[in-house]
Amino acid sequence: APIAMIGLGRMGANMARRLARAGIAVEGFDPLPASREALAGEPGVRLHASLADAVAALPAPRTVWLMLPAGEATASTLAGLRGLLAPGDLVVDGGNANYLDSQRRAAELDADGVGFADCGVSGGVWGLANGYCLMFGAADAQAAARVAVYARALAPAPDCGWLHCGPVGAGHFTKMIHNGIEYGMMQAIAEGFALLEGRQEMQLDLGAIAELWRHGSVVRSWLLDLTADALREPGAIGSVAPLVPDSGEGRWTVDEAVRQGTPAPVIAMALMSRFDSQGRADTGNRLLALMRKGFGGHAVTA
Amino acid sequence: APIAMIGLGRMGANMARRLARAGIAVEGFDPLPASREALAGEPGVRLHASLADAVAALPAPRTVWLMLPAGEATASTLAGLRGLLAPGDLVVDGGNANYLDSQRRAAELDADGVGFADCGVSGGVWGLANGYCLMFGAADAQAAARVAVYARALAPAPDCGWLHCGPVGAGHFTKMIHNGIEYGMMQAIAEGFALLEGRQEMQLDLGAIAELWRHGSVVRSWLLDLTADALREPGAIGSVAPLVPDSGEGRWTVDEAVRQGTPAPVIAMALMSRFDSQGRADTGNRLLALMRKGFGGHAVTA
Amino acid sequence: APIAMIGLGRMGANMARRLARAGIAVEGFDPLPASREALAGEPGVRLHASLADAVAALPAPRTVWLMLPAGEATASTLAGLRGLLAPGDLVVDGGNANYLDSQRRAAELDADGVGFADCGVSGGVWGLANGYCLMFGAADAQAAARVAVYARALAPAPDCGWLHCGPVGAGHFTKMIHNGIEYGMMQAIAEGFALLEGRQEMQLDLGAIAELWRHGSVVRSWLLDLTADALREPGAIGSVAPLVPDSGEGRWTVDEAVRQGTPAPVIAMALMSRFDSQGRADTGNRLLALMRKGFGGHAVTA
Amino acid sequence: APIAMIGLGRMGANMARRLARAGIAVEGFDPLPASREALAGEPGVRLHASLADAVAALPAPRTVWLMLPAGEATASTLAGLRGLLAPGDLVVDGGNANYLDSQRRAAELDADGVGFADCGVSGGVWGLANGYCLMFGAADAQAAARVAVYARALAPAPDCGWLHCGPVGAGHFTKMIHNGIEYGMMQAIAEGFALLEGRQEMQLDLGAIAELWRHGSVVRSWLLDLTADALREPGAIGSVAPLVPDSGEGRWTVDEAVRQGTPAPVIAMALMSRFDSQGRADTGNRLLALMRKGFGGHAVTA
Repeated sequence: APIAMIGLGRMGANMARRLARAGIAVEGFDPLPASREALAGEPGVRLHASLADAVAALPAPRTVWLMLPAGEATASTLAGLRGLLAPGDLVVDGGNANYLDSQRRAAELDADGVGFADCGVSGGVWGLANGYCLMFGAADAQAAARVAVYARALAPAPDCGWLHCGPVGAGHFTKMIHNGIEYGMMQAIAEGFALLEGRQEMQLDLGAIAELWRHGSVVRSWLLDLTADALREPGAIGSVAPLVPDSGEGRWTVDEAVRQGTPAPVIAMALMSRFDSQGRADTGNRLLALMRKGFGGHAVTA
Repeated sequence: APIAMIGLGRMGANMARRLARAGIAVEGFDPLPASREALAGEPGVRLHASLADAVAALPAPRTVWLMLPAGEATASTLAGLRGLLAPGDLVVDGGNANYLDSQRRAAELDADGVGFADCGVSGGVWGLANGYCLMFGAADAQAAARVAVYARALAPAPDCGWLHCGPVGAGHFTKMIHNGIEYGMMQAIAEGFALLEGRQEMQLDLGAIAELWRHGSVVRSWLLDLTADALREPGAIGSVAPLVPDSGEGRWTVDEAVRQGTPAPVIAMALMSRFDSQGRADTGNRLLALMRKGFGGHAVTA
Repeated sequence: APIAMIGLGRMGANMARRLARAGIAVEGFDPLPASREALAGEPGVRLHASLADAVAALPAPRTVWLMLPAGEATASTLAGLRGLLAPGDLVVDGGNANYLDSQRRAAELDADGVGFADCGVSGGVWGLANGYCLMFGAADAQAAARVAVYARALAPAPDCGWLHCGPVGAGHFTKMIHNGIEYGMMQAIAEGFALLEGRQEMQLDLGAIAELWRHGSVVRSWLLDLTADALREPGAIGSVAPLVPDSGEGRWTVDEAVRQGTPAPVIAMALMSRFDSQGRADTGNRLLALMRKGFGGHAVTA
Repeated sequence: APIAMIGLGRMGANMARRLARAGIAVEGFDPLPASREALAGEPGVRLHASLADAVAALPAPRTVWLMLPAGEATASTLAGLRGLLAPGDLVVDGGNANYLDSQRRAAELDADGVGFADCGVSGGVWGLANGYCLMFGAADAQAAARVAVYARALAPAPDCGWLHCGPVGAGHFTKMIHNGIEYGMMQAIAEGFALLEGRQEMQLDLGAIAELWRHGSVVRSWLLDLTADALREPGAIGSVAPLVPDSGEGRWTVDEAVRQGTPAPVIAMALMSRFDSQGRADTGNRLLALMRKGFGGHAVTA
């Protein structure tokens, strides 16, 4: 069954390629001409100049897969799609939307008779070669079966690396939690290596230790693989600024912890440590410095 | 009963003044001539050119009160005192020593028949006028009674603001925990005001809110008084760098939490947030930036 | 100017009393007969059997002050009020609503020509005698002046303890942050006393130390006063369960930190530590126990 | 070169087996007869009834490897060894000692002309089959070369999974940090799965999600493998108590962070969350409950 892939950035383009290589015809669209051109000549992928054209190229019932930034881009494309789709069609949002938005959007599309599935996709640039990890929510078994057709091709193998997690929202929810765990694991690794580096008189070779731990240790993991790879470059640590951006899903995981009343101290501290790296603790720290100055201070009025 | 006050810095000088004003003769010494000169002419305070002279000026049994920086200064002065003191004498360490050091030092002096009391002193520059809060450890009721003579004069009133907390070590221990609480309270206040400032479109007047909360709110406190006082200056926040030093007692409180296995998440995070302000998270943050770069990455070797 | 006080629970009843004692006529209503009866005979307070009666007893333009639980009670009362109010009337929400709700509600009432002010009120049962700390948001100086008439009577003194903080929402926002700080300060104090208690061989007298610190120490505060008061009862600590509920405002403060990207590690950990006390870490801890069991374990399938 | 393996518990016994299978003669001793008997008949392993016998069975220069619990067992065995060893002998401590203890012990043995190497060993029960991850400190290249003879046999392969990290202490230091990272990663995973479970209306299958994430996700790791394995059992989560012990190395990592002034919020919170699971937050929580009760309260004396 052919599919429309809307959004041909780093993720969408490689997913289009992997689907096409599995024999699934892809009708592609991206608002940026450069993104379309980058896929030109890819066997099995046809590129279209508009969203409407891409959708029109599909036989009914259609499956339209979005790989767009969460937020405005996803919202406006969904708005545009509502005029183009018909009952029986299915939209799969493969971006990193908030699961509460996805639940709301599914209800809106449902009013048109259009199905909606939310699919978290992990794997980054490695996904084209190794396959992606896909977790999706779908309202019923039928919708799930339609998503599974593509998931089998995108995953590392047809029988693993994809899951119908639950109802609509469950896909983006599961992906959100996955990213929350990622925040915590990354921070744990970073703290550990900083402590290794901080015991300076030992002159520990961080790259060698990262490589060491990949073999037989309890902390072996893909994130450690990445760390070992990064530290292989001499001077790697000094080559980047100590600034760590954060994206929606780390924040949403903490929101969820608060909403549930479930403690998530490690994920919360990993997130807030990133805020700190962004200079966002400066006001608080200035206030602390002022208070300390006050200890030595002039009169406090009563 | 006269007393020797060793260490006439900001704390020691004012404590000498307060004792003298209460009619207690003070034999003062500080290794820095400037510190001695600053007290010259203070009624009831005699200044000496050496530790030995100050001690020799006291009748037996002597009480020698140290107000020195914890660590090397306290350790070397104690070493020097051992040759000058006789059985029945009492040393009071009013500095911020680690309670484990104080317990060890008491045992060493005990071998000479010399008593030891550890006294945490809170109050800063306000103590001269308002009195100090004193918490001390002493081996027995007799030693405690000797410390109490001076504590009654130093405290805000003879019957409050001082306490014989327990055995030797209990004074510095209690003071350490006091400072740990202070770290947490300061950080809570700083976070709150940073959040007020961060909701920029409301243009909240932080100084007015600090002043407001001093009257009838749940968070009214001396630290809030200090904050309100500091924020009264226009442009106060911008006038200081976002750098917050830390001293021994915050660290020791976290060590104690770990030693006990008692959770102290707020005190621990207040401390580590200060480390962050000192740039000590940079290595970890660079590692996180490297890992994030790796997501988009080149080959991870197997 | 008379006022309608809607909600005569612990807070509302005492506020009605304090207003009446200041010479402001109060038209009171509470859906619970028992709450109304508790105020019967209070000079200056008239009690009504319905919301409509209470409102109708006021001369135009009316001021209606709500002291209701945030959420459903406030929302349904506001819905009921919309049919009873006329252009020029003013609603003051003195409850602990989320500031985002208050901003939305102000916009809804504005469509009817009705004003809205959000007023955080701190002080608890002590407010009747000592006065309340009030922080409010109002759209303009005129609305603020109308709130100030009552704030002056409710505050500890006419010229302190109340503040027009900013636009609508600024009152509940400021109150929310106040409570966030309260969470952090309470937790800091609790951790400190737990550490005092945990150094068991010293047999420290927690109540005596709390009392001590009230005099001249850096951590003196109203929350410490409460702690000293509570610890004065022998066996106080053992008399309560180790369970700490949380209410909306602590959670909202952490939400706000995440929304802003402002680190608030201490407030976040104080909140999550409460979740933990509620047994909400159990699932995570069971998973950790399972993982630890796995270290000794049976085969992990590849 | 033959080796004495002192301590034949779960780790030591399997390491003795793996060494023997690699052709290295092992002279084994454990104070528990049952531990010795469990190895009886193992080809290449000779069992001795005393520490002295095991040591005496080695040709000079001897290598004695300790696999004992850190603390008293290691300390007393080292004390016993001092009378049995001669200049040129080498002791390898493969247990989880604090690196500061190891540095001190190396200095003590050095006074006898006996060498010391500290070797962290990771791998648990999986090590016999898969090999161990070994990280050691040694004073010089010669001592390191002697350790490497055994490390090559114990590691997953002769050329990976072992490292001479640096001077004496560097092995136990590196292992300590490894375990600190492990605490953070475990806690991140546990928090994530607890959040999955907490969104109850989705009825997520935690075991299926753990298995899913093992394929292509960013969080794939050996600890996730363990989690997936554990969750494969129906009712696994309910089968264990929500109690998570902690051992020395997690605590020491936080001590080290404090010693260095390097922030490690995630590792610290992972540790303190375990304290909480052990009921060690109860006193603090009771104090918070008391304070909250005080809000509604009786008189606070001034």
